[in-house]
Amino acid sequence: MSVGINARMVALAVHALAVVASVMVLIWSISYRGGFAWESTNKTLIFNLHPVLTLIGLVILGGEAIISYKSLPFEKRVNKPIHLVLHATAIILGILGVYAAFKHHNEKHIPNLYTIHSWVGISVIVLYSLQWLYSFIVYFFPGGSSTLRRDLLPWHVFLGVFVYVLAVGNSVLGFLEKLTFLEKSGLDKFGSEAFLVNFMAIITILFGTFVLLIVYSNKKTPSIEEDNYSYSAI
Amino acid sequence: MSVGINARMVALAVHALAVVASVMVLIWSISYRGGFAWESTNKTLIFNLHPVLTLIGLVILGGEAIISYKSLPFEKRVNKPIHLVLHATAIILGILGVYAAFKHHNEKHIPNLYTIHSWVGISVIVLYSLQWLYSFIVYFFPGGSSTLRRDLLPWHVFLGVFVYVLAVGNSVLGFLEKLTFLEKSGLDKFGSEAFLVNFMAIITILFGTFVLLIVYSNKKTPSIEEDNYSYSAI
Ligand code: HEM
Ligand code: HEM
Repeated sequence: MSVGINARMVALAVHALAVVASVMVLIWSISYRGGFAWESTNKTLIFNLHPVLTLIGLVILGGEAIISYKSLPFEKRVNKPIHLVLHATAIILGILGVYAAFKHHNEKHIPNLYTIHSWVGISVIVLYSLQWLYSFIVYFFPGGSSTLRRDLLPWHVFLGVFVYVLAVGNSVLGFLEKLTFLEKSGLDKFGSEAFLVNFMAIITILFGTFVLLIVYSNKKTPSIEEDNYSYSAI
Repeated sequence: MSVGINARMVALAVHALAVVASVMVLIWSISYRGGFAWESTNKTLIFNLHPVLTLIGLVILGGEAIISYKSLPFEKRVNKPIHLVLHATAIILGILGVYAAFKHHNEKHIPNLYTIHSWVGISVIVLYSLQWLYSFIVYFFPGGSSTLRRDLLPWHVFLGVFVYVLAVGNSVLGFLEKLTFLEKSGLDKFGSEAFLVNFMAIITILFGTFVLLIVYSNKKTPSIEEDNYSYSAI
């Protein structure tokens, strides 16, 4: 059930959207929201680290990690460590980003974990880490039997896609929530900042969609591995 | 890349979650939010139709439509009209639900289409309708050549899953937005209504996940159609 597209071409679109989304979230946080700080009396500057780290980490680097086997011109021997290091970086940035959100809430005496965004957010961090951990054990070190690798592969893909969709969707939830807060405090519903945030959400959705298009695509380049188990050597 | 599960069993979980989600959204709208009206000076009663119709339509009936080929005990000849009528019902209820949201905004002089939820919502309605239309033409009447049917099938699945994930995600965005509005107007962040809405969002996500698990599953029952093109006669 794979769609026939040229994965390398779609990967270029993914990289381009990655740059656009990163620039947008930086412009938003720095030019509109005042920039960053880890310690400050202006607690907003602590919060601002949250969308930047989670989006660039979990969504963008996570997406690049997912497509790495098909987007990079290297052999599997090289792609595999890239795949797992990118995912580890995504998780670390995600955890730092979530830490910033908690720090902001705590220092402002706002309660923690009262929104569906925060509940899904915690689930994303936990599930993403578990996915990384069992996959490292089975596919990298010490490594499972070839039967186990093959049988687990569809689950590795389904669960990986599941947690990735949660991460992308949760970022959109975050954008909606932050923008709603700002609009309730008087921000113009049709002003430039509102459009920036909403278009950033759309770019995020498009980025995730193109990543998944690559996941569900065939390799276009002829290859002896062109069969149902083309990943089996992972 | 299909996961090996018993689709019939997972379908039971889907039906159960469908009942739970429907009951929750009705309890919320009726007992907590005051019920429904099409004409009323209490404009909230008009809005209340929106989550009920979109959730039960696009998400629940849409999900049941997606899994119908694998969940129902009938032959393809019977399942096919069920699949397309369920999807048509989903779209009609979705359109009515969105109409109620606009009616509520217009009668309360709130601007239309200023949120990412509403933008994604319009996209869902348009894309869902287009998906239905081209699929009706290709797979039902007048019907395309068997090559076209087969070549288009992975796209029918990918685009169908894409718009369905958008619908599920957009419902969660809607729950978050409505709850944020209520909390800004004084609703207790950890009160029973907040928990009801947040758990409803989680049930919605679980429902969608189980639907997609069935999409990406193998048929467990032995069948001559057990190959890559098991849907090819659609
Ligand atoms: C997948 C990426 C993300 C994850 C895992 C995540 C996770 C979290 C968590 C766990 C909290 C709760 C902190 C607490 O309760 O003290 C939170 C809060 C928050 N996040 Fe995110 N977040 C993500 C992306 C974003 C993005 C892109 C934005 C956009 C601005 C955002 C906006 C917010 C806001 C406004 C809050 C405070 C309100 C609340 O608790 O929901 N988040 N996030
Ligand atoms: C896939 C299902 C859904 C679709 C397609 C959808 C679509 C829309 C659209 C197009 C609007 C804009 C109306 C206007 O601008 O006048 C809207 C508004 C709204 N919807 Fe939904 N909706 C869905 C599900 C939900 C759910 C389950 C809730 C939960 C309460 C919800 C809550 C809201 C709220 C609070 C508004 C008003 C604020 C706004 O314009 O965003 N929606 N919806």
